Amino acid sequence: MNTLQVDLGKRSYPIHIGQDLIGSPELVLPHVRGKQVLIVTNTTVAPLYLEKARAAFPDRQVATLVLPDGEKYKTLETLNLIYDCLLEHRFHRQATLVALGGGVIGDITGFAAASYQRGVDFIQIPTTLLAQVDSSVGGKTGVNHPLGKNMIGAFHQPVCVVADTGSLNTLEDRQLSAGIAEIIKYGLIRDPAFFTWLEQNMEALLNRNPETLAYAIERSCRNKAEVVARDETEQGERALLNLGHTFGHAIETGMGYGTWLHGEAVATGMIMAADMSKSLGWLDQKALQQVANLIDRAQLPTRAPSELSTDRFIELMGVDKKVQDGHINLVLLKTIGQAVVTGEFAMTLLRHTIDEHHALTLTRGPGLS
Amino acid sequence: MNTLQVDLGKRSYPIHIGQDLIGSPELVLPHVRGKQVLIVTNTTVAPLYLEKARAAFPDRQVATLVLPDGEKYKTLETLNLIYDCLLEHRFHRQATLVALGGGVIGDITGFAAASYQRGVDFIQIPTTLLAQVDSSVGGKTGVNHPLGKNMIGAFHQPVCVVADTGSLNTLEDRQLSAGIAEIIKYGLIRDPAFFTWLEQNMEALLNRNPETLAYAIERSCRNKAEVVARDETEQGERALLNLGHTFGHAIETGMGYGTWLHGEAVATGMIMAADMSKSLGWLDQKALQQVANLIDRAQLPTRAPSELSTDRFIELMGVDKKVQDGHINLVLLKTIGQAVVTGEFAMTLLRHTIDEHHALTLTRGPGLS
Repeated sequence: MNTLQVDLGKRSYPIHIGQDLIGSPELVLPHVRGKQVLIVTNTTVAPLYLEKARAAFPDRQVATLVLPDGEKYKTLETLNLIYDCLLEHRFHRQATLVALGGGVIGDITGFAAASYQRGVDFIQIPTTLLAQVDSSVGGKTGVNHPLGKNMIGAFHQPVCVVADTGSLNTLEDRQLSAGIAEIIKYGLIRDPAFFTWLEQNMEALLNRNPETLAYAIERSCRNKAEVVARDETEQGERALLNLGHTFGHAIETGMGYGTWLHGEAVATGMIMAADMSKSLGWLDQKALQQVANLIDRAQLPTRAPSELSTDRFIELMGVDKKVQDGHINLVLLKTIGQAVVTGEFAMTLLRHTIDEHHALTLTRGPGLS
Repeated sequence: MNTLQVDLGKRSYPIHIGQDLIGSPELVLPHVRGKQVLIVTNTTVAPLYLEKARAAFPDRQVATLVLPDGEKYKTLETLNLIYDCLLEHRFHRQATLVALGGGVIGDITGFAAASYQRGVDFIQIPTTLLAQVDSSVGGKTGVNHPLGKNMIGAFHQPVCVVADTGSLNTLEDRQLSAGIAEIIKYGLIRDPAFFTWLEQNMEALLNRNPETLAYAIERSCRNKAEVVARDETEQGERALLNLGHTFGHAIETGMGYGTWLHGEAVATGMIMAADMSKSLGWLDQKALQQVANLIDRAQLPTRAPSELSTDRFIELMGVDKKVQDGHINLVLLKTIGQAVVTGEFAMTLLRHTIDEHHALTLTRGPGLS
């Protein structure tokens, strides 16, 4: 097992990465202040890991809540089910919430913890690759609104994260690839050597080699932790983590939450961002091709859905959080391993980029792979 | 006009107190970062002050949202109306929310600001005495849940507070008294000289003498600001501000939100706390009588509602936030001007205190004054 410390002063916390960690009291109990524990999970994860997770909290009063599975349930209504449960069980301020599942469970449980009685502790046990390399670091929590993704939420750091690589064995191929999209992102925005490593180890990742996975998770978390430690509430540098996300959110929202997985939308979004970067003279054709190839090898979609018109696409980008006073800022690439936030591009270029990504038929879209 | 600075490091902010301040751009504009402003108010306040408040934001894109008036609308559903409005107007992260109204508007708008896109700025323009002396300092925001008051929320500091004593001229007598309850509280928990001043100036306060009001507001805010500066997220000392609140919340919840005003419930709760303090040998009979007399002179109820059985009362106290691992902690008085948080009392004493406050007929209950 490896342990990585996310350095955020009083809000610092450890991420434990390794095989068969769910169910280890010694990892979580030091972080549980009170007697009351609520494990929140979903209908997919519960039969696989709920009993195991419960065993990690001996001598505690453990309540469990099993939510429906899927991005479409990441809503205020579902959040309210957690509040109902907490209040019905008379949970106090010293209680600890445990998020056992993917990003949706982590985000919604984290926001419940952030807002229940103005803040209680929570522990993340992410069971998808995406959640292990992305949402487990940084403290972003929240729910979606019909008019925009992640529009309601809070920054709230967990007290401890347990990333069990064993839980990835039960993950669908499509979900595994979605996680790899965010891993590739770290290489693209700030770690060129990691990008090269990924080019060399993509097959081992897809084959779920435990050591390869553990290394990729740790290096991803380390990259994210460094960025977050310098900019906890996304005033500056942290925005670079949104590479591909403004395009991606437009795809996710436009297609209906859950149709495209978040990682799939981000993957296509990163290619669109790379494409724009090339048009601006930053990335060369070879680098663009490298990006597209790696994403394609990761079994991820490389084209935007033809169902979304360019006008609709731009409109959907407009309500994204990365927008200041009506002007769209995007994360683009200076080179592989170096990203910038910029608003200095013509809207016609953005339009042209989206047009182009509609022009071709889907080479590999969600559900078609 | 007097200006008081609430000292919270990077989250410090000014409170401006005086006549005719609503509508002054110079007070608020320095704190508005972006172009977008949403003023949230209610049906009672809108006809009186909305246009005035709007005039304080020239050259900004000002949207307004008028919510129904009343504690019973301090819900997740009403909160969602604010999110809807923000998203329909495509509000960005640089937007500023303005809470124009009493405590309900302040709490719900503050929580919308805390959670919209994980946090945007907000300005408080409290128009009730209670909001001016209580919720405008400290950053507590939130909404109620059917099973408990203020159970969902966040700590989120405003960027600026404008307390216009002129707005108190349109306040109902009952609301004015409710505000005075919290003013008396500051005297009781930490400022004995202020308690004496209140004994001498109660009639002038009730007659809405502008200088008397301004002085009472400023001294109350100063007391609260000192406590909050030392304990922003209520780990210790800040809990003293909850004198009378655990009893009070039981009354508010048990009678149905809005039947008793918050300040009325707190007033009765303070007498119950003083009574228990006397039983513990801390407060003498004379001091208890002084507390009850001042609250009675402020036209506030001095008895708990007979509708609530003692069992129900205790049950309702049990879901209150001031409870740790099943044991009830209460704020009690060592003397007038010195409060303590304690769990060291017999449950029979608590039961006896509640019983006693039922035994007498209502001397002055809400709606009877």
